[in-house]
Amino acid sequence: MATLSIKPRSRIFHGHEWVFSGEVASLRGQPADGEVISLMDVRGKPMGSAIFNSKSQIVARRFSRRKQDLDADFFRRRLAQAAEYRVHRGVDPSVCRLVWSESDGLPGLVVDRYGDALVVQTLTLGMDQRLPEIVSALMDVFSPALIVERNDAPVRHAEGMEPRTGVLAGEGIARRVVRWLDLEFEVDLLQGHKTGFYLDQAASYPLVAGFAKGRRVLDCFANQGAFSLCCARAGASEVIAVEIGAEAAALARENANRNGLSVQVIEANAFDYLKEAEAAANPFGLVILDPPSFTRSKGKLQDALRGYKEIHLRAAKLLAPGGVLAGFCCSHHVSARDYEETVNDALVDARRSAHVLARPGQAPDHPVLLGVPESEYLKGLVLEMAPGR
Amino acid sequence: MATLSIKPRSRIFHGHEWVFSGEVASLRGQPADGEVISLMDVRGKPMGSAIFNSKSQIVARRFSRRKQDLDADFFRRRLAQAAEYRVHRGVDPSVCRLVWSESDGLPGLVVDRYGDALVVQTLTLGMDQRLPEIVSALMDVFSPALIVERNDAPVRHAEGMEPRTGVLAGEGIARRVVRWLDLEFEVDLLQGHKTGFYLDQAASYPLVAGFAKGRRVLDCFANQGAFSLCCARAGASEVIAVEIGAEAAALARENANRNGLSVQVIEANAFDYLKEAEAAANPFGLVILDPPSFTRSKGKLQDALRGYKEIHLRAAKLLAPGGVLAGFCCSHHVSARDYEETVNDALVDARRSAHVLARPGQAPDHPVLLGVPESEYLKGLVLEMAPGR
Repeated sequence: MATLSIKPRSRIFHGHEWVFSGEVASLRGQPADGEVISLMDVRGKPMGSAIFNSKSQIVARRFSRRKQDLDADFFRRRLAQAAEYRVHRGVDPSVCRLVWSESDGLPGLVVDRYGDALVVQTLTLGMDQRLPEIVSALMDVFSPALIVERNDAPVRHAEGMEPRTGVLAGEGIARRVVRWLDLEFEVDLLQGHKTGFYLDQAASYPLVAGFAKGRRVLDCFANQGAFSLCCARAGASEVIAVEIGAEAAALARENANRNGLSVQVIEANAFDYLKEAEAAANPFGLVILDPPSFTRSKGKLQDALRGYKEIHLRAAKLLAPGGVLAGFCCSHHVSARDYEETVNDALVDARRSAHVLARPGQAPDHPVLLGVPESEYLKGLVLEMAPGR
Repeated sequence: MATLSIKPRSRIFHGHEWVFSGEVASLRGQPADGEVISLMDVRGKPMGSAIFNSKSQIVARRFSRRKQDLDADFFRRRLAQAAEYRVHRGVDPSVCRLVWSESDGLPGLVVDRYGDALVVQTLTLGMDQRLPEIVSALMDVFSPALIVERNDAPVRHAEGMEPRTGVLAGEGIARRVVRWLDLEFEVDLLQGHKTGFYLDQAASYPLVAGFAKGRRVLDCFANQGAFSLCCARAGASEVIAVEIGAEAAALARENANRNGLSVQVIEANAFDYLKEAEAAANPFGLVILDPPSFTRSKGKLQDALRGYKEIHLRAAKLLAPGGVLAGFCCSHHVSARDYEETVNDALVDARRSAHVLARPGQAPDHPVLLGVPESEYLKGLVLEMAPGR
């Protein structure tokens, strides 16, 4: 087996699981991309087993601190551990993220469950090459009726892989109605945003809806309307959902009807809608901002922050004192501190002062690994506009 | 009224409520310390009303964005707003922090409620001079039987004030049994740590106890034993509370007996106890670290971080895989990021990998004001030790 030795002070000595190309001291052997290699420090101390990929900036991803092969038994063990973790955290086992990459010791593997169907993403070459073993282990551990792959995430380019979607095993309809959050949603496992739902918001939907009762609610970037539906059910006086995508907007409308809830779905650009709503001067009691990522690269960080500032500034102006602003940022490249400072700047410009009610993050089925900041990407900030002082 | 003009780019233009001595452009008039002054920017734009104190680094603390006097009516209005905020947040109104300084628009005033008694702290000169008006407004709004002052916080020195404790109004016994968290606690309003309880942990006690069932629990820096009592009630197999203070340890013992709960209280230095427990090699399922602040000054930051690292390192070694570490940091001068990095360093040294289960902060009766980092001091990190990989 090839062995890679790692420069001192590299991230892996501070609890991370990745080795970047600039952190390589030397490589013994000629491993193929996707092969398992051994890691050690420059003094020869073993540092565990990793997947190698010369095409990626991240040349090695550790999956074990011991000597370990990526065999069927390994996958079954890790999948069982991941499932057990979710049981302990009280996650709804029928609709959840079953595997979350490094956090579950399976770098680059993401598996979501929608009833008897599983949706798989292999975002690293090492996992992609082992898809047959993974599918077999998933069958053994979870016995799903259907397994599909949603390998259309742009991040695969960084590992030198092409996009791909389709059925991997079993039979069943990829477009289906799923019960989640005590509501019924139609999802399309092969076509929808992400793998269908925004599972990572599972805990935030009820949290934010807790502020909806008796209030006018504006849900921007509504996607299939999960925030809107939860707010309508919680007794909002009115719910307006703004979504730019025609299909998502149609699904949001259908989902509202399906659950007998009243939501006004507007197919529009949220930036434009917020601008117009400001002029209308009809304040809201709760504004939700859950936009898609504004940047996929570090280089566009300042543009992204300008975008976050603009929507939070406009939202703050729509709220009366006591009104609640629930903002979210799922950009990997925007830190929690940057996001909070940007929101603060927006509120200063809007001449509003606010109390922090909550800072919701990813639902517990998207576990965060301490020391691996990349395992955490979703940052929420729920603010109450303070009384005018 | 004297007017203070503020240099451009000062904190107050970024949502803060303080003016530091280095941020003063000029002062017109000769205000006495504690007097109300007007603020403006260098172009003469009004920036609100503040309390002046030349003896403090913070020469002006804004309490209103308008022209405003510190009269009885003002205090009554702010107290009523603060009470209303807590009702909305679902806070137990019989035992809570009623007023939290800047966050309630009353810089330097802290009021805690323990049943029919109020405990007041005036931590700024401006509030201290107006104690009679404050007591009168508290009587009007809350009609307590007893008001005591606990003006023994060291922070008063920075404002040029001496320590002072005693009864301000009404009658009653300062040592009393109070029902809180559905438990009975004996508190001493005039002698205990802080104002009796650690009210800021109200939400964290049940959160952490949620991981106690069937587990051996070690509660370090236990004070009066609130974490221990909650864990024992939640079904811990064993609870050991370590507290160095003889009086606090005795109170913890009494509180356990009073509630019919089994807690083994050990009067010891938690650093020493953790060291010895490590040698005993009898693992715990939950270790709680809720130490007092390790530093009151920025200069001692590195020493404080070393202290936090040591206790978290030792605690991590006491936990089996799946074990939970609940750490807290109430040092104003340690940022959330510094604290989390320190805990991560400790876990790396302990050769442990961990999932972040929660990051609890101050209870909702200690509201955090966005843009005023000093309003937030309590940082928690609840970690589950990942399975050995």
